[in-house]
Amino acid sequence: MRILGIDPGLQRTGFGVVDIDGPRVSYVASGTISTAEAARGNLPARLKLIFEGVTEVRRRYEPQAASVEIVFVNVNPQSTLLLGQARGAALAALVAGDLPVAEYTAVQMKKAIAGHGLANKAQVQEMVMRLLQLPGLPGKDAADALGLAIVHAHAARHLAALGSAGDLSPRSQGQYRRGRAV
Amino acid sequence: MRILGIDPGLQRTGFGVVDIDGPRVSYVASGTISTAEAARGNLPARLKLIFEGVTEVRRRYEPQAASVEIVFVNVNPQSTLLLGQARGAALAALVAGDLPVAEYTAVQMKKAIAGHGLANKAQVQEMVMRLLQLPGLPGKDAADALGLAIVHAHAARHLAALGSAGDLSPRSQGQYRRGRAV
Repeated sequence: MRILGIDPGLQRTGFGVVDIDGPRVSYVASGTISTAEAARGNLPARLKLIFEGVTEVRRRYEPQAASVEIVFVNVNPQSTLLLGQARGAALAALVAGDLPVAEYTAVQMKKAIAGHGLANKAQVQEMVMRLLQLPGLPGKDAADALGLAIVHAHAARHLAALGSAGDLSPRSQGQYRRGRAV
Repeated sequence: MRILGIDPGLQRTGFGVVDIDGPRVSYVASGTISTAEAARGNLPARLKLIFEGVTEVRRRYEPQAASVEIVFVNVNPQSTLLLGQARGAALAALVAGDLPVAEYTAVQMKKAIAGHGLANKAQVQEMVMRLLQLPGLPGKDAADALGLAIVHAHAARHLAALGSAGDLSPRSQGQYRRGRAV
């Protein structure tokens, strides 16, 4: 099973692709979709780059499931609105291809990758590098996206072990916490 | 020139299509894309319905430009985040088809349609019905969407009259206020 992790953002959207084969999780690809080439005030142009970038990744690697970070409200409401639109465009690119989408918070991802929910970016990069035996540190956004893909890989495996693999709905996967499907 | 107006929302996204031919603006179609069939907590499923609905409208009516309402932050930050994602999915469906997107606030639309920015929903419905010579009142979301298409039709005509039709960039159109390109 191949999983695509997405860490959405208006400036940079990270993506990471992993394969799971039993207990083994292996690296396939990762990177960042940048919207820097669009004019700063041109929101539709930025969303177009996000949509097209995620679509290209989806078509190139043909994952069977997606895992997307749940974003939260920002202290700046305008930033919340912009982040929401970026996430909406990224999700549209996933569901347009009929990809089942699971959702995890950053805390859930960090707990699964680094053992605690307060891990910083560098710790996530370090742990993702080790878990996937990468030759070097992945970028921050790519590391988060790979972390999201790994969390979902764990959840899918645990649910399969529980004999409920037939009910891998995004909702039940989204409720996964630390090896426990709730 | 054919214009597609979109009033984005997580529950209901209104759409309205008009043709402009010189000073004449004529009705083509309007309606509402509802996400009621998706489970309430299933955001990816809702965004999928919005993306697919807007894509279908775009393909069926083949507009040359889109006009989308600029949304604002809500008192409830979580609502802001959800509305942002709905708008992001709707915009993705427009820009995926390389449609130029202009953006207007509800106040700009109401001023152009009803003469003042504080017009209520019923007044917008009434004025849209008169302007487009409809046999009956359009639905609220459809009326807002038709209003957005009409505002953009006015802007496009005024800009053309100013001799700047070659520069109908979404940005310059978005700045249009009451017959004045600023």
